[in-house]
Amino acid sequence: DSGSLQQVARILNGGLSPSDIAHLLESSPPRQRTLLWSLVDKELEGEVLQYLSDDIRSYFLSQLDPQEVASVIESFEPDDLADLLQQLPEAVIQEVLETMDEQDRQRVEAVLAYPEDTAGGLMNTDTVTVRPDLSIEVILRYLRRHRALPAITDSLFVVNRKDDFIGVLPLTTLLVANPAATVREVMHTDLDPIPVTLGDNEVANLFERHDLISAPVVSDSGKLLGRITIDDVVDVIREDAAHSLMGMAGLDEEEDTFAPILKTTRRRAVWLGINLITAFIASAVIGLFEHTIEQVVALAVLMPIVASMGGIAGSQALTLVIRGMAVGQISPQNIGWLLNRELIVGALNGLAWALVVAVAAVFWFNDLTIGLVIAAALVINLVAAAVAGTTLPLILKARKIDPALAGGVILTTITDVIGFASFLGLATLAYS
Amino acid sequence: DSGSLQQVARILNGGLSPSDIAHLLESSPPRQRTLLWSLVDKELEGEVLQYLSDDIRSYFLSQLDPQEVASVIESFEPDDLADLLQQLPEAVIQEVLETMDEQDRQRVEAVLAYPEDTAGGLMNTDTVTVRPDLSIEVILRYLRRHRALPAITDSLFVVNRKDDFIGVLPLTTLLVANPAATVREVMHTDLDPIPVTLGDNEVANLFERHDLISAPVVSDSGKLLGRITIDDVVDVIREDAAHSLMGMAGLDEEEDTFAPILKTTRRRAVWLGINLITAFIASAVIGLFEHTIEQVVALAVLMPIVASMGGIAGSQALTLVIRGMAVGQISPQNIGWLLNRELIVGALNGLAWALVVAVAAVFWFNDLTIGLVIAAALVINLVAAAVAGTTLPLILKARKIDPALAGGVILTTITDVIGFASFLGLATLAYS
Repeated sequence: DSGSLQQVARILNGGLSPSDIAHLLESSPPRQRTLLWSLVDKELEGEVLQYLSDDIRSYFLSQLDPQEVASVIESFEPDDLADLLQQLPEAVIQEVLETMDEQDRQRVEAVLAYPEDTAGGLMNTDTVTVRPDLSIEVILRYLRRHRALPAITDSLFVVNRKDDFIGVLPLTTLLVANPAATVREVMHTDLDPIPVTLGDNEVANLFERHDLISAPVVSDSGKLLGRITIDDVVDVIREDAAHSLMGMAGLDEEEDTFAPILKTTRRRAVWLGINLITAFIASAVIGLFEHTIEQVVALAVLMPIVASMGGIAGSQALTLVIRGMAVGQISPQNIGWLLNRELIVGALNGLAWALVVAVAAVFWFNDLTIGLVIAAALVINLVAAAVAGTTLPLILKARKIDPALAGGVILTTITDVIGFASFLGLATLAYS
Repeated sequence: DSGSLQQVARILNGGLSPSDIAHLLESSPPRQRTLLWSLVDKELEGEVLQYLSDDIRSYFLSQLDPQEVASVIESFEPDDLADLLQQLPEAVIQEVLETMDEQDRQRVEAVLAYPEDTAGGLMNTDTVTVRPDLSIEVILRYLRRHRALPAITDSLFVVNRKDDFIGVLPLTTLLVANPAATVREVMHTDLDPIPVTLGDNEVANLFERHDLISAPVVSDSGKLLGRITIDDVVDVIREDAAHSLMGMAGLDEEEDTFAPILKTTRRRAVWLGINLITAFIASAVIGLFEHTIEQVVALAVLMPIVASMGGIAGSQALTLVIRGMAVGQISPQNIGWLLNRELIVGALNGLAWALVVAVAAVFWFNDLTIGLVIAAALVINLVAAAVAGTTLPLILKARKIDPALAGGVILTTITDVIGFASFLGLATLAYS
């Protein structure tokens, strides 16, 4: 009833922060979500949208006309706004830009000029800059004339007359410095500014490695263009991690946990279809050896063991290499060592478990031959899995295919085919 | 030769930051790593160790005696030091603590008192506190008496005489405030301090949701105990993400990418052994239907399709729920809706792909019965996979078993058993 709805609206708009409201929306099934969204205050909508995942945000925005979109996203930071605009149709982008005032439009267009996954796409233009020859006292007076400093300002950036980046003046330094000293005397110059074209994952690695809170972004010629702040970097890290995890299962990292039935069915169907191809390839391989299976039906019983052990061993190497690549540990200098180690580890574990499986098979089926065959097939498949798991991510990356998404499927195809073919092929030789 | 070694040492100690050196060590195979480590300057060792992953750090530390450990880790922050000490044998911890001066020891013991994965284990005690009745001008003078402020200080904490937390004074507010105003007039009181017992994942969610840089940690009674900074939170986020990803493949998130052969073989062997049990269970199920397979060998050819489609569908639900739980979206209020949706999605996709597979099977083997049998088995297994994938993470979590580690193996066992049993069981009925 409307009385309890009003109560919910009061709690929603009075007691919760925009990020909490966004979290609540993300945690709600479709019908409740639509109802809750309709109860959110108009003035809060923009801020709430900023915290929503792409999937859900696009849905809510798609139900507004350009005028409404423009008024809702007024409060967005230029980088968030640029990300969002990139998801809208070109015509809507233009309409939204036209409703903005000159300064805001320029800021957004500055960010829109760079791909979303680069330093340029992550940066904001809300830098506070100072000149190197001013005294600390003057800077303190200058700052006091502001009503507020931009959120997450931990440093002022020092630039010359041509706006070239020279150094960083952390607030913690500013506050303890001798008021008579000049900026040049106390500024830090050991931090390399971030090139505007650097990839977002490298930006995240820089922030993590140097414990940065904000960092200057510069053009090729060294001109200060803007700054990147840690909150956006944390989003990059989270999205990247979600992508690796969800990608392995063929899910999108922006996937809405509570997406409606039909949308979910369609998305999942694609992944199942791709994997069905893998399964049919494996079946086709088995089909080649129908005659042998007919003679020795124990082969049908044991064959999943060879394929699945290969899949497990391969996915361990695959995951290790994908992660090593993500954190920048793997290079042409050390990949040879890594491949060699994985090969030996595969062979050693292949031999060890081959022995166990062979003994079990011999006793189960009272047949020495089947033990020898499965042992040999296991060693072959575990070594092949090691090679495939280690090299696949590199090959895929070189071909600009996402290893997190495609790696697992291709690997399974390889370990299934080699597993079934080696086991049934060797059996065909042994029993003929 | 020693000339080029000296050159490497010069580059290492002169040109690279401690975090860069740590990254280089983590990216090197064992022999090069030991050589590089021996070239690092004694004074830099402590800082480099801070940036290394647990696995590698423990190894280097295990080669030092307690005296050396104490001198190397002098520069550590109390929270990092506490983490590190927790990995050492109790006797060594005591020896190290004894070599520290009184103040440092108290700080470390304050952190050691809390579990590593709570706010208490993450916090440092290097807060800068001020009283509410002082003027901004006095605070600025007080700060100028410091030689430096602690790294990542974006706020001063306001406390009363009893050290109870009252509010936060951001440096950005301090710098623009009227010098005559009091702290009480300009401080922020809308940020809830973090309870010392809060779990580290909840701490990370708070930081992310409110774009925090540092946050106060308080005792049950509201006394300020320390602060948590974003750099440590980023580590929590990274580790957590790595744990989900690596755990799915049975790897440890602190796994050294370049671990030596024997260590790697041993660790991988355990996971292969666990999965071998799964594979043997699946084989045992197939073994029950040997007689049927002997009659209709096409069953052996097609049976991997049913099992693998179930595994894929189940792992999609499993991954979605594990992630939804990690970001705090899933609650008793919405799990019913989610289970219901997954059931329907499983059934719909089961029916859709059952049709495709059935048609393919009928044409392949020229046998209508096998088409009907595989279609029914696919629907059964995809619905079972949906239920298992959705409920398993919740059941495991309630039993305090890590879903990221155990979920995949248990799920595969379920989808293999149900897949083989339903397909071969229905076939036995149909062909008898």
